[in-house]
Amino acid sequence: MGMTMTQKILASHASMQEVKAGQLVMANLDLVLGNDITTPVAINEFNKMGVNEVFDKKKIAIVPDHFAPNKDIKSAEQCKCTREFVYEKGIENYFEVGQMGIEHALLPEKGLVVSGDVVIGADSHTCTYGALGAFSTGVGSTDMAAGMASGKCWFKIPEAIQFILTGKMQKWVCGKDVILHIIGMIGVDGALYQSMEYTGPGVASLSMDDRFTISNMAIEAGAKNGIFEVDDKTLEYVKEHSTKVPVTFKADANAKYSRIIKIDLSTIRPTIAFPHLPDNTRTIDEVGEVKIDQVVIGSCTNGRIEDLRMAASIFKGKKVDPKIRTLIFPATQKIYLQALREGLIEIFIEAGVAVSTPTCGPCLGGYMGVLANGERALSTTNRNFVGRMGHPGSEVYLCSPAIAASSAITGKISSPEEVM
Amino acid sequence: MGMTMTQKILASHASMQEVKAGQLVMANLDLVLGNDITTPVAINEFNKMGVNEVFDKKKIAIVPDHFAPNKDIKSAEQCKCTREFVYEKGIENYFEVGQMGIEHALLPEKGLVVSGDVVIGADSHTCTYGALGAFSTGVGSTDMAAGMASGKCWFKIPEAIQFILTGKMQKWVCGKDVILHIIGMIGVDGALYQSMEYTGPGVASLSMDDRFTISNMAIEAGAKNGIFEVDDKTLEYVKEHSTKVPVTFKADANAKYSRIIKIDLSTIRPTIAFPHLPDNTRTIDEVGEVKIDQVVIGSCTNGRIEDLRMAASIFKGKKVDPKIRTLIFPATQKIYLQALREGLIEIFIEAGVAVSTPTCGPCLGGYMGVLANGERALSTTNRNFVGRMGHPGSEVYLCSPAIAASSAITGKISSPEEVM
Repeated sequence: MGMTMTQKILASHASMQEVKAGQLVMANLDLVLGNDITTPVAINEFNKMGVNEVFDKKKIAIVPDHFAPNKDIKSAEQCKCTREFVYEKGIENYFEVGQMGIEHALLPEKGLVVSGDVVIGADSHTCTYGALGAFSTGVGSTDMAAGMASGKCWFKIPEAIQFILTGKMQKWVCGKDVILHIIGMIGVDGALYQSMEYTGPGVASLSMDDRFTISNMAIEAGAKNGIFEVDDKTLEYVKEHSTKVPVTFKADANAKYSRIIKIDLSTIRPTIAFPHLPDNTRTIDEVGEVKIDQVVIGSCTNGRIEDLRMAASIFKGKKVDPKIRTLIFPATQKIYLQALREGLIEIFIEAGVAVSTPTCGPCLGGYMGVLANGERALSTTNRNFVGRMGHPGSEVYLCSPAIAASSAITGKISSPEEVM
Repeated sequence: MGMTMTQKILASHASMQEVKAGQLVMANLDLVLGNDITTPVAINEFNKMGVNEVFDKKKIAIVPDHFAPNKDIKSAEQCKCTREFVYEKGIENYFEVGQMGIEHALLPEKGLVVSGDVVIGADSHTCTYGALGAFSTGVGSTDMAAGMASGKCWFKIPEAIQFILTGKMQKWVCGKDVILHIIGMIGVDGALYQSMEYTGPGVASLSMDDRFTISNMAIEAGAKNGIFEVDDKTLEYVKEHSTKVPVTFKADANAKYSRIIKIDLSTIRPTIAFPHLPDNTRTIDEVGEVKIDQVVIGSCTNGRIEDLRMAASIFKGKKVDPKIRTLIFPATQKIYLQALREGLIEIFIEAGVAVSTPTCGPCLGGYMGVLANGERALSTTNRNFVGRMGHPGSEVYLCSPAIAASSAITGKISSPEEVM
């Protein structure tokens, strides 16, 4: 029996010839990730393990991005605890406020993840790096602690759903619409503990930023990971960002899938997830009149340079509705700088957008854009659960940067065609 | 008996020929200001007064700047309450997130305050507008409510300290050093319920931004207001920013002062206020080795374009110490845009600085840079009371943007000469 991409990566890291879905393996880790919320919990567990040193100072990445710059005394204490651990253990990949970004945009940009890697992170959207043909998945803080101590993690080998992509996305459609379309189709538990494996001739037409967005939201379909076949674009990205050597794992021709889904990218319309689940999707044509109070563009899902370019192309020379708060968060300092040099930040500020330093804050109702009772946000983030961005009586609608920017101008969910 | 500048302005707004220190008068207001913390309290009082309309829709300014973009559900509810009142009453000068700035930088920039005005604001640093030769002072939310309803406010006519400025500041010295020097000299209650009136040949050498900073911190010496004699620079500023007609009030030659203090600006050294009071000052030459954890440049005190230029001239081509979190908050969107166009924002981000949308957050330990126990911040803000920026066991040191930027590079309180 053949293996899927994910199975092959896990087999190689468990030093096994073959693995099967359902089997338990212990795999070597190429990277262990934590943030300012999860690392303090992991440190607590780590300290109970009776080890003094981390397994590899180069293979741990700590990013204070959730409530940093510190939103309150509690988060300040958590960041302090994290920082002290980092310096004490000599962890090399620590990214301080001002020199950082949102973890899932930052790690690929810093070259810390490449094709073929196995990565765990104490954050559910760690699945993002599947865009690079890596196996990466979110774990709890205890697993993060064990990973930091041992460099290993137990996995149950997942089954996979194969997505065969064909065609090319239309104008104003992007990776976000593709993944919302898929989650709308299969449901928030449609890929429970499975790999979502993307292949087919349509992959080539997707930019790396599109792929990061698609892999990022695998967890929103319940998946263990979301992974793209490695192609020239992947290898070019890796070469540009990393000194690590990528390893390409291709699924066997006779690999077994729980389901095979064909998607013609050219048929996908701009898609919005209505409250309160990412699978509650409608195309822009089915939305009707939905007034909004706040627009957020950014996060580990859609805070990359292409996202900002898309938004800027709509905001250029226009103003946001004076009643709408519009917030843009470039995902890393590098992306911020690039956007600045391309003139995008100027366009945003001229349009009346608040541009912030990178942070996860608004996505999880942390700070910098929390909603009051009855308020509605349209957001390029990844979750629209009850109370996700603030008050339990508030609502979050998920969409692409193009829809977000267009709607900030009109004050209601709108397509780019309505404002261009 | 002659009158001081402040007395003349208050007399004119009370329709009186003469007023004396200690006398109670009722004055007409040119502007009533509130923010997202104080306005909800004022609304509550307003609603008890049995009036339906505000006294003048054009003479009220509401700025959500303290905990906006909303830091939590409570602040979101406060902003919502404020916004609903603004729209219900038709208040014209409301500045939404993304289209705003920090109130005391924003109001002069928007031309809402000019020379000769009487302004009350439910924020202690409302005294900032004295830089324009206006009388402005902080009041409680109840006075703000009464002001919104009636357009009037009671004042006890203050005595004044006259500051006669001569000479010119040396390189790397700015308005912040002048006011810290003065507060260090007279103490945090040195001007209790008095006007600080600035005159003399040295005034001409101070930029408007220097004057805003000096007036801004009058409250830190306990003063009722801090006011500058109007000169060509003032009138030029007003002409550039406002359509309102300025009125110049000059102190009578025989005005009586409680104290006259002569200050030769050329003798002032860069000055730092140590914890935990603004009058606990030392010059840079007396500082010794003080390691820091965080640097903040911004606020209603020092977030203006000249402050950012000063900081950028030091950061240019350099990196912040990797262990220091450095945060810069341009005070308004207009300042942000100007800084961006001048290349300052690029310099900051290249240096490893987190640049945020305008907010008061970090200054008052609200969000975006709260301190943990034992941490030290060096900040261009206005208060260094116990726990001002976070944990009661943290410390705040106040300084100019030049000292702040230099220290961000070295990791300890440093002069520009040490890094240039």
